[in-house]
Amino acid sequence: MAINPLPPGAGTAIGIDGLIALLAKLPGLGPRSARRAVLQLIKKRESLMQPLARALAEVADSIRICSTCGNVDVQDPCAICRDPKRDAGLICVVEDVSDLWALDRAGLFRGRYHVLGGTLSALDGIGPDDLNIGPLVDRVRKGDIREVILALNATVDGQTTAHYITDRLGALNVDVTALAHGLPVGGELDYLDDGTLAAAMKARRKF
Amino acid sequence: MAINPLPPGAGTAIGIDGLIALLAKLPGLGPRSARRAVLQLIKKRESLMQPLARALAEVADSIRICSTCGNVDVQDPCAICRDPKRDAGLICVVEDVSDLWALDRAGLFRGRYHVLGGTLSALDGIGPDDLNIGPLVDRVRKGDIREVILALNATVDGQTTAHYITDRLGALNVDVTALAHGLPVGGELDYLDDGTLAAAMKARRKF
Repeated sequence: MAINPLPPGAGTAIGIDGLIALLAKLPGLGPRSARRAVLQLIKKRESLMQPLARALAEVADSIRICSTCGNVDVQDPCAICRDPKRDAGLICVVEDVSDLWALDRAGLFRGRYHVLGGTLSALDGIGPDDLNIGPLVDRVRKGDIREVILALNATVDGQTTAHYITDRLGALNVDVTALAHGLPVGGELDYLDDGTLAAAMKARRKF
Repeated sequence: MAINPLPPGAGTAIGIDGLIALLAKLPGLGPRSARRAVLQLIKKRESLMQPLARALAEVADSIRICSTCGNVDVQDPCAICRDPKRDAGLICVVEDVSDLWALDRAGLFRGRYHVLGGTLSALDGIGPDDLNIGPLVDRVRKGDIREVILALNATVDGQTTAHYITDRLGALNVDVTALAHGLPVGGELDYLDDGTLAAAMKARRKF
């Protein structure tokens, strides 16, 4: 047997341990679950590990930020912005791509989106220029937009951002709406916070 | 703008959605956390996504099962089997590579390992020939082995396997030992099962 010039353990340190360290950086995985994931990957080398390596490399190479709406996709404009069956007169404004995905999975909105990339935050020093707000105003000014739906999180920062955007769009001929507050479907009164209960009571409707 | 010949959404379906589906197959990740992981990967394309793709491809190409002990490594024999500072006269028998890693992280054992690849199981139809037991007997017969430490799980199948291996090694000149049963360090009596308490009582020692 030829003596390997690497010191013992070096092969492992570069390969498997490095892979574990990288996987452990993913949200939802820590060092322990990354080790389990690597063992699983090694056991399923052909059916999982190699396809995953290829998919990661492919997406890393081809991913683009949509210059129209800020969505991520492998093409620019993204598949949503170039879909002619979607209503180009409706724009749903979201904080992050994950929110866009959540709304689109629900399958109830057939307009287009605009991703802000965050919310205004005095604490974190995030101002209007740090967000994708200027391009939204431009889209509304140029395009034939009937309605802008603000689907921002029901947090202080989210609502501050919603008010700011409403102000910026005020002079333009467009309806600005926001998602309703109220009871989540399946929610029990007992477990809901006072703010949600107050909002649901205030927005009560004829039954 | 040139019209892309792909139907709308096709780019996404191949790339990002395929990546999410593959990541969701890892233990500890489901569809929701896989989506979060992909967004994180996209945000950290250069610092995380590309290195992870490379590490996966590299490990998938170079991973080997050690022909001596059954460990996984990027070389064969593995780094542990070729480490001259480890005591070649001690073999610690474990069920799975994850057990080997757990023991080696603890850093208290400086001998070598033997990975069975599972336990005997009448229910699952796993017999001695399905496990890495024959090669263990060969290692003990050929080599200068003083002691075989059975570090199998304290389950019915684990202990059945331990008894079987003890039988197989009975005719050879080697000590066969097993990990002690007892209280886990930091464990509270109140929370322990009766079996552990009985084992700890039976194996009590002078204080």
